[in-house]
Amino acid sequence: MPVTDLSADEALADGFSIADIEAAAGRITGVVRRTPLLESTRLNDRLGARLLVKAECLQHTGSFKFRGAYNRLSAMEPDVRARGILTYSSGNHAQGVALAARMFGVPATIIMPSDAPAMKRRNTAEYGATVVPYDRHGENREAIGQRLAEADGLTLVKPYDDLLIMAGQGTAGLETVAQCRELKATPELALAPAGGGGLMAGFSTAMKASFPALQVMSAEPEGYDDTARSLATGVRQANAGTPPSICDAIMTPVPGVLTFRVNRRTLSGGVAVSDDEARQAMATAFEELKLVIEPGGAVALAAVLSGRVDVQGKTVVVVASGGNVDAAIFADALVLGR
Amino acid sequence: MPVTDLSADEALADGFSIADIEAAAGRITGVVRRTPLLESTRLNDRLGARLLVKAECLQHTGSFKFRGAYNRLSAMEPDVRARGILTYSSGNHAQGVALAARMFGVPATIIMPSDAPAMKRRNTAEYGATVVPYDRHGENREAIGQRLAEADGLTLVKPYDDLLIMAGQGTAGLETVAQCRELKATPELALAPAGGGGLMAGFSTAMKASFPALQVMSAEPEGYDDTARSLATGVRQANAGTPPSICDAIMTPVPGVLTFRVNRRTLSGGVAVSDDEARQAMATAFEELKLVIEPGGAVALAAVLSGRVDVQGKTVVVVASGGNVDAAIFADALVLGR
Repeated sequence: MPVTDLSADEALADGFSIADIEAAAGRITGVVRRTPLLESTRLNDRLGARLLVKAECLQHTGSFKFRGAYNRLSAMEPDVRARGILTYSSGNHAQGVALAARMFGVPATIIMPSDAPAMKRRNTAEYGATVVPYDRHGENREAIGQRLAEADGLTLVKPYDDLLIMAGQGTAGLETVAQCRELKATPELALAPAGGGGLMAGFSTAMKASFPALQVMSAEPEGYDDTARSLATGVRQANAGTPPSICDAIMTPVPGVLTFRVNRRTLSGGVAVSDDEARQAMATAFEELKLVIEPGGAVALAAVLSGRVDVQGKTVVVVASGGNVDAAIFADALVLGR
Repeated sequence: MPVTDLSADEALADGFSIADIEAAAGRITGVVRRTPLLESTRLNDRLGARLLVKAECLQHTGSFKFRGAYNRLSAMEPDVRARGILTYSSGNHAQGVALAARMFGVPATIIMPSDAPAMKRRNTAEYGATVVPYDRHGENREAIGQRLAEADGLTLVKPYDDLLIMAGQGTAGLETVAQCRELKATPELALAPAGGGGLMAGFSTAMKASFPALQVMSAEPEGYDDTARSLATGVRQANAGTPPSICDAIMTPVPGVLTFRVNRRTLSGGVAVSDDEARQAMATAFEELKLVIEPGGAVALAAVLSGRVDVQGKTVVVVASGGNVDAAIFADALVLGR
């Protein structure tokens, strides 16, 4: 028998399946919003393809992150949950956790980069969470989290490297499957934004369970294409430094351990887009879909619109994963992205 | 027996009911999009109310107008429809008719104001319609339409004063009823933007059929509050002139004959908002709902957010009726509306 040095969690990640996502769907029904799968005649004409956009920017708190957060909190022991939740996040997971904690009536402490978008900081505080700022370039958020968790008996809710979080995010894929069937669409290609890879893992698992021939790809910002390079080499690759990017939501240093164990099974590769391509996608979503998409949430759409992936003649799904963007950045995209 | 001088259409308008809207729903199912009814925790907190926003900006062609247009064309004799469709519109009805005509494979001619937003003119042409510009301040679009219809054997599809158009728009209300029930919400107040009154007539009829105690109000731009004044006096009142407004979609001179016969039965009154209040509502929808709403589509939301109607403690539905706005006007609203 071969010797294995997998951790228990890694072994569970290898068994992560549609059953985990269906269990999550059972917990979140009636709380999480079924977001629409949108399509534009003119956009289809322009691309020579059928493009379906899963509008997770319309989810509660403005991103898919509420799905995983609510699923994770639902599955906790009530007395443990009551002591409080702790997390670190650049903003979208923060808001998801803050609203989920509020719904369960438990306190939440959020460690956020001091340079996170103003809207994300303000919204998180308005949901009633305590925001602890840290320096993205000098401090280690995991270490700060560990310290605070031990001191106050809080439970750390990780942003992606957690099977319940991945399963919660996967419910966006489960909905997309049902919506594709309602539209009589059989997708051949699907793309979603990848930060730590939680959405990718859940979404790809859900979609491939119903459409086994589907190719699923990650979309990332240039300079943060750790998932693409990890998929290409078969082992987790970190990004070199923290170059500037407008895609704040997905400037993650390296794929998660657990998420990558799933994504290396389910994904066919990854693509990276420039800031200008993200802006162009935001402007197109404004014009053709009437959606507000944030830069990091627009990278999958950008990969298609920029021609970085070939969609000619195909039915393609992209996830628009979030819409929490400051007005000035959005207004810039409308001007620059045209 | 009292003498009556009602036209046949006026008599039909007096009998306009939920049955007309249910018949429309049967014709449009699977083609028209079921748009989401959205809600924001933070917005509810701020208002001290439960606010539900029917996002018709996410409808095909970016406004509710596609509902009525598709219903109207569905109900035509195929050989009459094949000769072609004619309409006049400031842009949203134009796009709705253009896409519906394209789906039925019949030609469409659209009479549009020469100062209609660039996006609306371009989109209408991109759906394959022939656009005929006219001077909003000097020419009579109804007369131009009549001439073209007679010359080419085209069928005029009016923007609002038509029972099939009103019934089609009413399907937005039918969906809202079902969505309120899913959310366990019993609305006490509902507002929608009013131009000629087609959406108001269909929406109010559908909503009041299920929620008889509901109060429904029209929302209009300042200077174009013809529906509010007509409701207050009991007879159709025209606007004085054509003052400037950013709410291009609903700068209608006077309520329709048929729409007003319905609305005087179903509406409790009307409210008017300023351009700045419309901009503020657009900025709030951007921040809290991640929706692109055009100025005219935002007036019902603006009536609530501005405090012009009292919503304290109530469950309130507003229709966000369209999202076809040029980038520069939207970017302005994000800056000015904050």
